[in-house]
Amino acid sequence: MDRKLKMGMVGGGSGAFIGGIHRMGAQLDGQIELVCGVFSSNSEQSISFGKEIYLDEDRLYKTFDEMMACEARLPIEQRMDFVSIVTQNNLHFAPAMSALNHGFPVVIDKPLCFTMDEARELRSKVKATGLPFGLTYTYAYYPMLIQAKAMVKNLEIGKIRKVMVEYPQGWLSDKLESTGQKQASWRSDPQKAGISNCFGDIGTHCGHLAEYVSGLKITEVLAGLNAFVQGRTLDDDADVLFKMEQEAKGVISSSQVAQGDENNLKFRIYGEEGALEWSNTDHNTLLVKKQGKPIQIFRSGVDNAFLHEETRLNMRTPSGHPEGYIEAFANIYRYFSDDVKHFTIDPTTNRSCKYPNIDDGFKGMALVDAVVASSVDGNVWKKIEE
Amino acid sequence: MDRKLKMGMVGGGSGAFIGGIHRMGAQLDGQIELVCGVFSSNSEQSISFGKEIYLDEDRLYKTFDEMMACEARLPIEQRMDFVSIVTQNNLHFAPAMSALNHGFPVVIDKPLCFTMDEARELRSKVKATGLPFGLTYTYAYYPMLIQAKAMVKNLEIGKIRKVMVEYPQGWLSDKLESTGQKQASWRSDPQKAGISNCFGDIGTHCGHLAEYVSGLKITEVLAGLNAFVQGRTLDDDADVLFKMEQEAKGVISSSQVAQGDENNLKFRIYGEEGALEWSNTDHNTLLVKKQGKPIQIFRSGVDNAFLHEETRLNMRTPSGHPEGYIEAFANIYRYFSDDVKHFTIDPTTNRSCKYPNIDDGFKGMALVDAVVASSVDGNVWKKIEE
Amino acid sequence: MDRKLKMGMVGGGSGAFIGGIHRMGAQLDGQIELVCGVFSSNSEQSISFGKEIYLDEDRLYKTFDEMMACEARLPIEQRMDFVSIVTQNNLHFAPAMSALNHGFPVVIDKPLCFTMDEARELRSKVKATGLPFGLTYTYAYYPMLIQAKAMVKNLEIGKIRKVMVEYPQGWLSDKLESTGQKQASWRSDPQKAGISNCFGDIGTHCGHLAEYVSGLKITEVLAGLNAFVQGRTLDDDADVLFKMEQEAKGVISSSQVAQGDENNLKFRIYGEEGALEWSNTDHNTLLVKKQGKPIQIFRSGVDNAFLHEETRLNMRTPSGHPEGYIEAFANIYRYFSDDVKHFTIDPTTNRSCKYPNIDDGFKGMALVDAVVASSVDGNVWKKIEE
Amino acid sequence: MDRKLKMGMVGGGSGAFIGGIHRMGAQLDGQIELVCGVFSSNSEQSISFGKEIYLDEDRLYKTFDEMMACEARLPIEQRMDFVSIVTQNNLHFAPAMSALNHGFPVVIDKPLCFTMDEARELRSKVKATGLPFGLTYTYAYYPMLIQAKAMVKNLEIGKIRKVMVEYPQGWLSDKLESTGQKQASWRSDPQKAGISNCFGDIGTHCGHLAEYVSGLKITEVLAGLNAFVQGRTLDDDADVLFKMEQEAKGVISSSQVAQGDENNLKFRIYGEEGALEWSNTDHNTLLVKKQGKPIQIFRSGVDNAFLHEETRLNMRTPSGHPEGYIEAFANIYRYFSDDVKHFTIDPTTNRSCKYPNIDDGFKGMALVDAVVASSVDGNVWKKIEE
Repeated sequence: MDRKLKMGMVGGGSGAFIGGIHRMGAQLDGQIELVCGVFSSNSEQSISFGKEIYLDEDRLYKTFDEMMACEARLPIEQRMDFVSIVTQNNLHFAPAMSALNHGFPVVIDKPLCFTMDEARELRSKVKATGLPFGLTYTYAYYPMLIQAKAMVKNLEIGKIRKVMVEYPQGWLSDKLESTGQKQASWRSDPQKAGISNCFGDIGTHCGHLAEYVSGLKITEVLAGLNAFVQGRTLDDDADVLFKMEQEAKGVISSSQVAQGDENNLKFRIYGEEGALEWSNTDHNTLLVKKQGKPIQIFRSGVDNAFLHEETRLNMRTPSGHPEGYIEAFANIYRYFSDDVKHFTIDPTTNRSCKYPNIDDGFKGMALVDAVVASSVDGNVWKKIEE
Repeated sequence: MDRKLKMGMVGGGSGAFIGGIHRMGAQLDGQIELVCGVFSSNSEQSISFGKEIYLDEDRLYKTFDEMMACEARLPIEQRMDFVSIVTQNNLHFAPAMSALNHGFPVVIDKPLCFTMDEARELRSKVKATGLPFGLTYTYAYYPMLIQAKAMVKNLEIGKIRKVMVEYPQGWLSDKLESTGQKQASWRSDPQKAGISNCFGDIGTHCGHLAEYVSGLKITEVLAGLNAFVQGRTLDDDADVLFKMEQEAKGVISSSQVAQGDENNLKFRIYGEEGALEWSNTDHNTLLVKKQGKPIQIFRSGVDNAFLHEETRLNMRTPSGHPEGYIEAFANIYRYFSDDVKHFTIDPTTNRSCKYPNIDDGFKGMALVDAVVASSVDGNVWKKIEE
Repeated sequence: MDRKLKMGMVGGGSGAFIGGIHRMGAQLDGQIELVCGVFSSNSEQSISFGKEIYLDEDRLYKTFDEMMACEARLPIEQRMDFVSIVTQNNLHFAPAMSALNHGFPVVIDKPLCFTMDEARELRSKVKATGLPFGLTYTYAYYPMLIQAKAMVKNLEIGKIRKVMVEYPQGWLSDKLESTGQKQASWRSDPQKAGISNCFGDIGTHCGHLAEYVSGLKITEVLAGLNAFVQGRTLDDDADVLFKMEQEAKGVISSSQVAQGDENNLKFRIYGEEGALEWSNTDHNTLLVKKQGKPIQIFRSGVDNAFLHEETRLNMRTPSGHPEGYIEAFANIYRYFSDDVKHFTIDPTTNRSCKYPNIDDGFKGMALVDAVVASSVDGNVWKKIEE
Repeated sequence: MDRKLKMGMVGGGSGAFIGGIHRMGAQLDGQIELVCGVFSSNSEQSISFGKEIYLDEDRLYKTFDEMMACEARLPIEQRMDFVSIVTQNNLHFAPAMSALNHGFPVVIDKPLCFTMDEARELRSKVKATGLPFGLTYTYAYYPMLIQAKAMVKNLEIGKIRKVMVEYPQGWLSDKLESTGQKQASWRSDPQKAGISNCFGDIGTHCGHLAEYVSGLKITEVLAGLNAFVQGRTLDDDADVLFKMEQEAKGVISSSQVAQGDENNLKFRIYGEEGALEWSNTDHNTLLVKKQGKPIQIFRSGVDNAFLHEETRLNMRTPSGHPEGYIEAFANIYRYFSDDVKHFTIDPTTNRSCKYPNIDDGFKGMALVDAVVASSVDGNVWKKIEE
């Protein structure tokens, strides 16, 4: 394909944080260009925003249905190649279904959708259409977690025993939603966020990482959800014991009331022959541990020959020139766009599926569902719907 | 009192790790001197070891009963002022009872003893005699955890919400006990270690710290114990959700199969107005966190005026001249010997009890008991015996 | 201006590292688009590369002179608004002069040029034309160094006493240039790199940072250059004592033979009332030190209200979502493009000059010149040409 | 020898920091006991202090001459075996000469003495008597620097190219000596500290470490001394370029006005095949670097089989149980007392000299002398007296 892929966007207008990140990430490598969008449910604001970011006015739509329909009618060389959906949780399902119905591949900012019913329907639809479908579980696409996955797969730490994932944030330590702060308001509102805030928002990243790096499925959970700040309906803190395939065990501790903690996702995996440790606060480092030996500091860098090939393919700079959050999005978009290109040329080809896909999205929803059920029922083990 | 206090020791002979630490810690500040002991159940080895460390031969005893009896008959200025018991878990109770029966104050290396029955009996005895009784929950006496306790008490982080304690070690990642290694062998043997290995050995430190810093009691636990290495009877890994007074919550994750982790005790406490974080790998640092403000790095040092008085009293060097593990023991021994001095002068005085005492020791035993029961019964909540 | 700025590029074709970084950095914020270029001295390769990155074939030129001439003839709405020059050191001058002669603003990857004669001529030309002219001393535009500069300017650490900058790299520990490695080959070749390798390449970053953060000029240097690897003509290691205005002092230690060090630029500045410390390996952190108080950890993040406004304007993500090297380039391009926009609308307006400009570029050249002279003459003090 | 060695002390009375450290360090391993002393030039205070630390009153002396004379007359089994001198710099020489004249081995807290004349005389005396003579360059005896020395000697990082040592402290950022603070007052007084404050006090540690780890002598220095705080006669900041044997080079940067820095001694050594890095703020870690490979974290611990034998002999605890400053003193005293024991048994035996000896002490004095001369003469190279 001798052109950039064309992307449409739903959501992500003025004031939205994640929309801008998606635009920067998608376009970073010069393989994708944003060509159209519906950036707000307020159509005036949507159009105004589209102009601000220099889009052609005739590609600025009032509703996502209009966008899907109009774009689908454009010649293949002009129309968008896929849609990126970056709205809040309760507004993922409808535009996704619309896109799929019009034959467009879809990327959604996690979580997949709002309810288990939506999740089941969306999964069926994706499988029926065979369209590429991606989800931005971003953290997994930091190079050093790609490296971790490759090392586990390559048996460098042996059979997995335990996975420890923590994700403390402090930003909801006070009742920020009372101030009208946008991010806090919708996340703490069951009508918009769903049945869980803390675990649904950040605990799911932990769950995804556990499966992604280990290659093992989480099968059961025992959870304790807390709402420490008075007046909150949804959890702002969650601890989860879990069981995985092959008798591996794990713990997820996530919190939004961890005063002074930024976004301190930390991932550790212990096997029979070694262990790996990664932290978002030092995301270009992977600690490689073998009992009785000095710990090794694996660092990112395209020039670091000791890294796996897959890791090096997901970096742009030599060691000591730090990449970050936007590049992790770019890595997902790059994998996804490879599939879209192949699909565009020949819809019958196999997918690489190196990006988080519909099954990962469904699993995330089912995990939250089981966690909430476990907590409600008094901290008992719950199986996760498959 | 114009002389050093005299200490007797039970256990801690050749090859024992913790005995030497107790001797160095107790004597570091020049206020205590070791004068007698029974260092081994083998009386020849005991005497030989006593000579090696330059003790008077007539103060080297064959059994602890002989030691208690003989020392009790010496003039008050000559005889030992207290006994330090550093034997393995199943050999704490008998010498402790003997010492108390002979009127000697006692320090025991944690845990208190071997069974709940012993614990109940020992507690009664201590309370009945009114003798000073200490336990070396060492980590709590690192200066920066003394500081943490003082800050919490002083309401500097507000009402406590959550306490997170982890303690990963890697030294039992393989079946070390099969090699005959001394430490591994008795700890993994139910006849010597008791009903738990991992949680009993290191999880209890976590539990003690949680109560010590927060000033709140742990009331209930829900635990999952694992034995990852094949052939092990006792746990080598343990995760515990817990409830505290005043609706605080917490998690303890301890492990002996955390490949490559040394002794990475980490303690975090989150309140309504701030948080504190301490790690054994950087033990002279306490991170002080307030949401929305830069994290502050509190460092040890007698010259650091921003530290609480109690903290500064437990350091010997100015900032940048690191103290360590032995000094933490010395801090406990200093507090304990203050009480012994006061008691020696006047047995009716009140105790400072600034060191871990019989109640802390009993709580440790009861905590392990409840944790094991919770795990055996399928990970359900268990109340802790008071 | 209701469109993106148009950028042309000289250099940066296949295999070049820094060209890709400039393209990503310049276009990251959606305010600039690359429209034309000469990417290689081999015109076939240049055109082939331009196609690869999806440029219009009729904007792919064979020489930079052709590019300047052709673009200058295009209508103002179509032609490039400025040129980015990312060739190796000895090929900066000619395209820069050509661009300026055709009325195009210029960005050059540091250093400014190849010789002092070129530097003097280029400075005269820039001043004569009044065109915006920028240089990518990238490190200075990491948010936390922008913060450092703002804090110093705001007198938060008082009168400056000392500036310590170190920049150890290990990549030339062996004679890498013998293997034909591209980066190593030209940098160690006096015909391409100029009179210095190590100090010219990385020591200059240190010098720039020292002046940038302190707001003080370096006036004199005393330098020791070393070539540790046998057979090298140019330095691979350099230590420099320096004097600044207002009696401040400093040290720069840069090295390319620091085995195992990546790109460990570290900057410290000490004033009468405090100190600041920044390191490239933890670039989103600034340590703020006041004698007798706990160190404060300032962290990047648009939501961190304790940061200066100027700092926050140079970030895209909230705390805990790391930005990196590419974003630092983007910050320079953003400042630069602001000036270009203002200039395009009205050439008589004042420049913001918030990016490194021609004076900074000249200073870099003069600094290297004085450092080399000092070392050659036996480590004596040398004044720096102004 | 079937008893503890007996130590006498000169200096180190009430309020002195380093005296207490020497007492704890010397006695930590149970091989040495303090038996006598002159703790203050005020004999009343001296005696009062001696009682406080429970010494026999008849071993508390009024002057060091009296002590040497009286102790020398005691039976060999009773009298002190060696003297530890912990007075301020200008009061080292006289008691040391007196001790040597009376046949007592001597340990002095560094620096050796006050003037070059004293240093020459003391060196002659020590060599003439053949008595064991030690100096507490403490940092070198942290286990991980013992490890560094062993690795260099074992050629694990190849031929040495460069040694970088920095030692920033912040405690004299303000004119602390004006407040009467004891440590600051004598150190900034040329009558008590000598010709240099900053370099003499802490720069010498850097110089010693450079020679100790590398095994190479420093031959020439080029130094810049600064007195940043107004009204100071002596330096409070010093940068030194140095040359070593075998064409190795190095830099020492030491400062007492580094606001907020504690005692941040940092040591790095770069060879043709690797590099080592150690920092006092994380003193139980040694980073081992090889270009192109992951950095390895070597950690202290008697159980770490990857450490050299000599390193393991200088530790008391397993990994993760931190030792510190006092233990480093203990290591020097242990090596020194081994020599004293051998000497006591047979004065003609060879010394191990594993502790810093008279030659190290003389070198420290000569280094300071050359550094001051270099700075005074305008930052020119100076040879160091041998």
